[in-house]
Amino acid sequence: MSNQIVTTMVLHSWHSTIKRAEAIVETLSDEEMNNEIVPNRNRGVYLLGHLAAAHDLMLPLLNLGETQFPELFSSFIRTPDNAENDKFTVTELRKFWKDANANLAKAMDNLSPEEWLEKHTSVSEEDFAKEPHRNRLNVLISRTNHVSYHVGQLILLKK
Amino acid sequence: MSNQIVTTMVLHSWHSTIKRAEAIVETLSDEEMNNEIVPNRNRGVYLLGHLAAAHDLMLPLLNLGETQFPELFSSFIRTPDNAENDKFTVTELRKFWKDANANLAKAMDNLSPEEWLEKHTSVSEEDFAKEPHRNRLNVLISRTNHVSYHVGQLILLKK
Repeated sequence: MSNQIVTTMVLHSWHSTIKRAEAIVETLSDEEMNNEIVPNRNRGVYLLGHLAAAHDLMLPLLNLGETQFPELFSSFIRTPDNAENDKFTVTELRKFWKDANANLAKAMDNLSPEEWLEKHTSVSEEDFAKEPHRNRLNVLISRTNHVSYHVGQLILLKK
Repeated sequence: MSNQIVTTMVLHSWHSTIKRAEAIVETLSDEEMNNEIVPNRNRGVYLLGHLAAAHDLMLPLLNLGETQFPELFSSFIRTPDNAENDKFTVTELRKFWKDANANLAKAMDNLSPEEWLEKHTSVSEEDFAKEPHRNRLNVLISRTNHVSYHVGQLILLKK
């Protein structure tokens, strides 16, 4: 029972953070998205691709399926912001971002509180036996903070 | 048992986020702290006072004691960044921030997993009976995201 309450709380925190992030992304124009947050740091458009890629990668990490947008990883996870990222338009990145969140929401929807406490795929059975906190729910807690961190930056692009 | 694991996970997320935030605050010089994150937005020093005040306010919200630094609230919670905040030096604000986190860590240290699921003080007994997620642990989840959001901004001050 209490496990169910806490799982629901963590899920609610994720969904409300994503909702807020999506609202901010929608208020930003393509021009604003192409600006650097501060001089010589990431552009909004990089953060958008970065978050889309990070959320897409949660599918295999949570053992809920294959990544859908592997083409994003080399540009937005493995490398910092650079001109090569411009092969994606802002419109394309907005769609990756929305779709990654929607795919994930759908995949997570049927997990029971017990399944949320099952191991994620980056930990071995052996290590998980010793460290049971390395579970799916912990990934979600960590990724919620990750979105919040970057939302604090995206909001600065709004003129 | 599972409740204990999840509570430990949320607490671990809080403590590691605070540790990261404190490390970033320490790397920033007083001069960097006095800069605006981006033009015409909050200065680092405002965010420092804001987070100190927010964490101090968690003591009464979690029903763990009285606020220790009520003098911060009018400047850093109720009003946006303004010249009046300069009555506090950066050195003073650094101390408020460290002390607020330390006071809170100490006060939270003895709570059992069951006590974390007790209501926080901004919800009535009547509403809590209907909405049991409005508990102490939910405050901690929410405030962890809040710190992450502002840490994403503070890091931008580093030259």
